[in-house]
Amino acid sequence: MSYFDAASAAPLHPVARQALSASLDEGWADPARLHREGRRARLLLDAAREAAAEAVGCRPDELVFTPSGTHAVHAGVAGALAGRRRAGRHLIVSAVEHSSVLHAAETHEADGGSVTRVAVDRSGAVDPSAYAAALREDTALACLQSANHEVGTEQPVAAVAENCRAAGVPLLVDAAQSLGWGRVAGDWSLLAASAHKWGGPPGVGLLVVRKGVRFAPQGPSDDRESGRAPGFENLPAIVAAVASLRAVRAEAAEEAARLRELTDRIRARVPAVVPDVEVVGDPVRRLPGIVTFSCLYVDGETLLHELDRAGFSVSSGSSCTSSTLIPSHVLKAMGVLSEGNVRVSLPPGTPAEDVERFLRVLPDAVAAVRERLGAPAAARTAPESGTDLVVDATGRRCPIPVIELAKVIGDVPVGGTVRVLSDDEAARLDIPAWCEMRGQEYVGEEPADRGTAYVVRRVS
Amino acid sequence: MSYFDAASAAPLHPVARQALSASLDEGWADPARLHREGRRARLLLDAAREAAAEAVGCRPDELVFTPSGTHAVHAGVAGALAGRRRAGRHLIVSAVEHSSVLHAAETHEADGGSVTRVAVDRSGAVDPSAYAAALREDTALACLQSANHEVGTEQPVAAVAENCRAAGVPLLVDAAQSLGWGRVAGDWSLLAASAHKWGGPPGVGLLVVRKGVRFAPQGPSDDRESGRAPGFENLPAIVAAVASLRAVRAEAAEEAARLRELTDRIRARVPAVVPDVEVVGDPVRRLPGIVTFSCLYVDGETLLHELDRAGFSVSSGSSCTSSTLIPSHVLKAMGVLSEGNVRVSLPPGTPAEDVERFLRVLPDAVAAVRERLGAPAAARTAPESGTDLVVDATGRRCPIPVIELAKVIGDVPVGGTVRVLSDDEAARLDIPAWCEMRGQEYVGEEPADRGTAYVVRRVS
Repeated sequence: MSYFDAASAAPLHPVARQALSASLDEGWADPARLHREGRRARLLLDAAREAAAEAVGCRPDELVFTPSGTHAVHAGVAGALAGRRRAGRHLIVSAVEHSSVLHAAETHEADGGSVTRVAVDRSGAVDPSAYAAALREDTALACLQSANHEVGTEQPVAAVAENCRAAGVPLLVDAAQSLGWGRVAGDWSLLAASAHKWGGPPGVGLLVVRKGVRFAPQGPSDDRESGRAPGFENLPAIVAAVASLRAVRAEAAEEAARLRELTDRIRARVPAVVPDVEVVGDPVRRLPGIVTFSCLYVDGETLLHELDRAGFSVSSGSSCTSSTLIPSHVLKAMGVLSEGNVRVSLPPGTPAEDVERFLRVLPDAVAAVRERLGAPAAARTAPESGTDLVVDATGRRCPIPVIELAKVIGDVPVGGTVRVLSDDEAARLDIPAWCEMRGQEYVGEEPADRGTAYVVRRVS
Repeated sequence: MSYFDAASAAPLHPVARQALSASLDEGWADPARLHREGRRARLLLDAAREAAAEAVGCRPDELVFTPSGTHAVHAGVAGALAGRRRAGRHLIVSAVEHSSVLHAAETHEADGGSVTRVAVDRSGAVDPSAYAAALREDTALACLQSANHEVGTEQPVAAVAENCRAAGVPLLVDAAQSLGWGRVAGDWSLLAASAHKWGGPPGVGLLVVRKGVRFAPQGPSDDRESGRAPGFENLPAIVAAVASLRAVRAEAAEEAARLRELTDRIRARVPAVVPDVEVVGDPVRRLPGIVTFSCLYVDGETLLHELDRAGFSVSSGSSCTSSTLIPSHVLKAMGVLSEGNVRVSLPPGTPAEDVERFLRVLPDAVAAVRERLGAPAAARTAPESGTDLVVDATGRRCPIPVIELAKVIGDVPVGGTVRVLSDDEAARLDIPAWCEMRGQEYVGEEPADRGTAYVVRRVS
């Protein structure tokens, strides 16, 4: 079995496991107590904080441990917004942030604040000038991830931080995906991260608030973690998390080069071995271990199960794999195909043979799903003439609307149109993406009796 | 070394340790994912939820796991208040709740809500009729602990729950100290608990919201834990926590009887072997493992260090052991002496010999502290006549003001008064408590040039 979903959660690093075991013996007591068990716990906590601060590149008193990366983001956004309340209530985020950031932004909006979501290009990156343009007099905080969790694209954090600094606006960086690989460059103000992404145990996040940043923790608080993260410290997990961070950092340069070569193989060879595939995300400025592609005419959930049976655990941003039936907001913001989406995220230590085997298995897995769904085999020659067509795919889920479109496009004369009726939200993303991939013209959408009509003009 | 601070944190139960180790292998993946590691994690999470629900006595879908007991309380109070916003914004708590409940109440007040803090008697218990009297038309929620964390007194939860139910007000029970011993009786609506109190690892709390209770989670949320506890589930710790709960429950009846006998020994023998001691908390309706007493003329921090040197780890609610210099709000609400306070909380499995050794060591430890502080040895006979006295103890910390009072009381004629000037907040609690213990009359306090004058009349 090959586990290729490190971006969701990585198995516990052996060093973390040792540290966890040792600190369950030494660090279970309350570090706020005066007795020897408490003092011992306090020493362990202080040492963990110093080591974590060294890895992040901050002062120990700027760093607190939280119960998760999500808690770090929620506490960081709320505290920074409240601390800058006098400046205003405007928040800037990118459109491709982790859901924890977007949920915090939604809560802020529901509470009367305003939010600007900065768009990304087709590679998933923001433009620093777009962040600069979003800055307003009343901007209290800007948030930007160091790298994207679904497609691996690195963001221009240093340039955005410089723009924010010039405007006197703090920048919160969600470094969840990158902190195991190295420090976040640039003059950021707040940083959040999550230990189980770098081989630490679950239950530990980091929140860093630079000295001088106005910060007012929200909600009930206590004396622990500088009043920024209430509740009994999860000390054994904290110690293990920091041990793991140091261990993965020690191997980071070498392992990054190795994984980058492996993901380069996938990026290059998937389009060669699987027809009708779009590899997404920046090919160069990206995390070493993540590669994401989407397969036309494929249902993401079925493909995941097919790959699972073949021994590969991957993830997907397709709508058919989520409980909400909404395709990944990241793929949507990038304007790329979401159907048949596969994210491969390699854990450190992944053997090259596993990647080779994945590349051997993938074509058959995709073909099997396509065959089952009755996907079209190849494009036909355009007929000399014919009328405009309507395809009714209402009541049918992704990727059926696109499959139906592909089936009839051959019957449409060049210059003619086909109207695809669909009530699946994914069609709004996947039909334009299909047009882009196929060189056909996406005309636009119109309301229909049931769902929406997506109009496509045959160009070639 | 004997660890007698189980009420702060208990060492990891051996069963929890095994479960943690196994679930680090099996349960590190994201339970929201479709691949086999994710499905395996989901199965473990579902099984843990069922077992926890069985132990609590609720439905599995009423129970979510939180990162700590504190998070469970904060989320429970905020969600229940918001869910009942239409009823009003009045919150009832007891004066002796855990700080997490009191902090949540303070946040509610700062946000414009109103709070009634129900007083307790000298044993630390609330009167159900006082809770009933506090209920108002606009009461949204009432909170009551199952048992007190500092003195072990059990609260009349079932009777209070009945009153609340009759008024249509939900009752949230903080069961942190008692859940390891058994289910909470009565028709409560919400329940919070903390795994590291029952020998589980830190990083796990429980929040139970009964079906039919109006509940609106506050702050940013996500799909996890029914939208009531955002962030990646700490699954290995959850599995370990539930394994520990089942294990301690299996031994609970027998171990409760054994620890109760041991704490009864302490309750009975401490006043016999140490002069000027007040044992606090209900002698009968109490947790099996907790006993708390206060020693006149003793500085809590010094006594803790003295006992630590003698091999005993205990806790204290004295102001001199906290960073805030405010004596325990529990002792204050009970109106008992706070100086020289010692909480002994025995972990399951404590050998009787350890308790016997503690009883042998304690008298010398207390005597050593008293000698160092120059505490009075014995009361003198009252002089025939004399003027009213003033003792200036300003600038001096607990227990010096009481020691100075005790030194001069012999110089005051019966019927005469002594005014103790003090600027230490603990004096407000400890001087009346001393009068109660010594059979002298506490007249009251008056503002003074520096600090406050506490007036005591010699009666005998």
